Amino acid sequence: MKIICKQQDLSRGLSTVSHAVSSRSTLPILANILLTTDHGRLKLSATNLEIGINCWIDAEVQEEGSTTVPAKTISDLVSSLRPSQVELSVADESHTMSIKGQGSNATIKGMDPSEFPLIPSAEGSETPIALDAHQLKEMIEYVAFAAADDDTRPVLTGVHVETTNEKLTFAAADAFRLAVMSAPMPGGDLLADTILIPARTLTELARILPNEGSVQMIVTPNRSQVLFHTDNVDLVSRLIEGTFPNFRGIIPKEHTTRAVVETKEFSAAVKTVTPFARDSSNIARVKVNSGSEDGNETGTLTIEATAEDIGSNVSTINAAVDGPEQEIIFNVKYLSDVLGVVGTPEVALEITSAARPGVVKPVGPADYTYIIMPMSTNR
Amino acid sequence: MKIICKQQDLSRGLSTVSHAVSSRSTLPILANILLTTDHGRLKLSATNLEIGINCWIDAEVQEEGSTTVPAKTISDLVSSLRPSQVELSVADESHTMSIKGQGSNATIKGMDPSEFPLIPSAEGSETPIALDAHQLKEMIEYVAFAAADDDTRPVLTGVHVETTNEKLTFAAADAFRLAVMSAPMPGGDLLADTILIPARTLTELARILPNEGSVQMIVTPNRSQVLFHTDNVDLVSRLIEGTFPNFRGIIPKEHTTRAVVETKEFSAAVKTVTPFARDSSNIARVKVNSGSEDGNETGTLTIEATAEDIGSNVSTINAAVDGPEQEIIFNVKYLSDVLGVVGTPEVALEITSAARPGVVKPVGPADYTYIIMPMSTNR
Repeated sequence: MKIICKQQDLSRGLSTVSHAVSSRSTLPILANILLTTDHGRLKLSATNLEIGINCWIDAEVQEEGSTTVPAKTISDLVSSLRPSQVELSVADESHTMSIKGQGSNATIKGMDPSEFPLIPSAEGSETPIALDAHQLKEMIEYVAFAAADDDTRPVLTGVHVETTNEKLTFAAADAFRLAVMSAPMPGGDLLADTILIPARTLTELARILPNEGSVQMIVTPNRSQVLFHTDNVDLVSRLIEGTFPNFRGIIPKEHTTRAVVETKEFSAAVKTVTPFARDSSNIARVKVNSGSEDGNETGTLTIEATAEDIGSNVSTINAAVDGPEQEIIFNVKYLSDVLGVVGTPEVALEITSAARPGVVKPVGPADYTYIIMPMSTNR
Repeated sequence: MKIICKQQDLSRGLSTVSHAVSSRSTLPILANILLTTDHGRLKLSATNLEIGINCWIDAEVQEEGSTTVPAKTISDLVSSLRPSQVELSVADESHTMSIKGQGSNATIKGMDPSEFPLIPSAEGSETPIALDAHQLKEMIEYVAFAAADDDTRPVLTGVHVETTNEKLTFAAADAFRLAVMSAPMPGGDLLADTILIPARTLTELARILPNEGSVQMIVTPNRSQVLFHTDNVDLVSRLIEGTFPNFRGIIPKEHTTRAVVETKEFSAAVKTVTPFARDSSNIARVKVNSGSEDGNETGTLTIEATAEDIGSNVSTINAAVDGPEQEIIFNVKYLSDVLGVVGTPEVALEITSAARPGVVKPVGPADYTYIIMPMSTNR
């Protein structure tokens, strides 16, 4: 193997695949990156057996071949080389890679590339679903954070992805909240399908996807893996088995009170009460008041947290309120999470009663619904 | 107590003192910040009994008083408030502070300010030594990192500070290296003195000092503490007892070979070999070659590291070499540390032999010497 590429391209490629490297596996080769010449480009691959990433970079291939080298060593080395041409070569019958950059002449010992696990590539028989990269990144940002962190109910660590009714729908939930987002997808019905993708996979995908262009999503024929394919990057992940809860039944059909507030103000108010909610199960009391009927008093949204030992804070912001006064208790973290991703200037909070779920929606065309279960008022 | 100040000033002041807060002390009040009205300003104080910081901010004092509140709670709260006026008040006979910002109305429970340890202020009888803030920060940056991390020899955790021969001199060392920097100090002889300041204290001082203006250094009459005083900030620290080694005897008086290289190139070359030195005691072999006498071959500096299991790297840069060829082994971390602080475009490496200390000096007017003990060639 002998190739010449740009330091910048190689460094970017190594950084793209590095998140799939497993440094603590019982299989030592998973701490390595596989480098292979592939149809006139250099292919970099890494996998932790849950996620696998392939990344292709431009290179002048002078001699075909492949090897695997420790991810940390090659990444540290290449990132410290100056931005110029880099020559990678592997002598026949050897797994040791020689890396020549400007003024630097390194060798890195490797392991047999035939021992590296195969990462499936986009050549299956299933029909790919074409998605827009920008839209996909936005949907991941709005939904994936709501998935459960812990594995007590594995289906809740995944994002439910559905193509039906001419729509693409993402949904994620833990025991106390649910995020659902849909976007138009003409022709989606022809490919009507439902899969459960680990939320971690999607967060990783959002990191490495380009900001524009098209992404192909392919489910492997045995329905155990999903593959996201772009011109330069493939990400493969296992799918989660099991059935996602019927989330549509949880979404409130109506509400009695709706408060529209500035997203930034609401987010700042939540931040000022957080230090006081932290020591008491993150409890924050939200009050919505429509103001006086003659309009002399404007509507307000008040958020309040009290910690026995530390103190308390009450934060009040202006709100356009439609409906009667309401009071409800939320986990303040669930509010700050959603306010951290909503990109619209205004956001609406819809409440039915203190005992029923509250709903947060951006004010705008986006089809996004975020539901928070209230905490008991008896606590 | 009742004062009005700007959120930005209060937030900056809390951040300045916060590094002296001790969150894990057996004395719970050390996790608090003391707030006191002081001659028309608000004084913030924190101490971990090793370092104490006082910081004054502009305030409209409507009622004198003081309290102490948990550093984390007030810092988190104030940093999340919007940039506008903040009103702090403490009711008589209470230690609870009320903090009103735009739309936010908080109370934080505090502890009796009379229990807070006294941080000495600049009113001693000793003569202050006037230093330039910019120069002081530079000397700390160039010297303090060379002090020892661990406490096996307490004097080596300090920076030796000396005012004599019309010069201010800083020196720090661990078992394998020494950094010495001097700057002119007219009149320094009148105050001839030598003290040993914890390196951590000076690093902290460099963080909070303004970039320009004057700093007064005052040693307390009992010579147990040093106080750095500016208009808005005081930092007090204990001094280290004991005698710093006679470092002047260690500084080589001459050298046989001198290589001048570009600082950035040398630093980059050191970075490219670091991944290979890491697993073998940080050993790197430095070779200096003067090139051919006819000038057809230019001089070079080569740095090389080999790790049995991982591989090796040789990095070569151009050097203006005066003297015979040399080869010496250094701990690569000691090179990268000094190259990270030297600000001049060029740096000189002076070598006598493989068994004698090497010297790194910036090329320029700065009076700075950095000495590295070589590692044994038998290893």
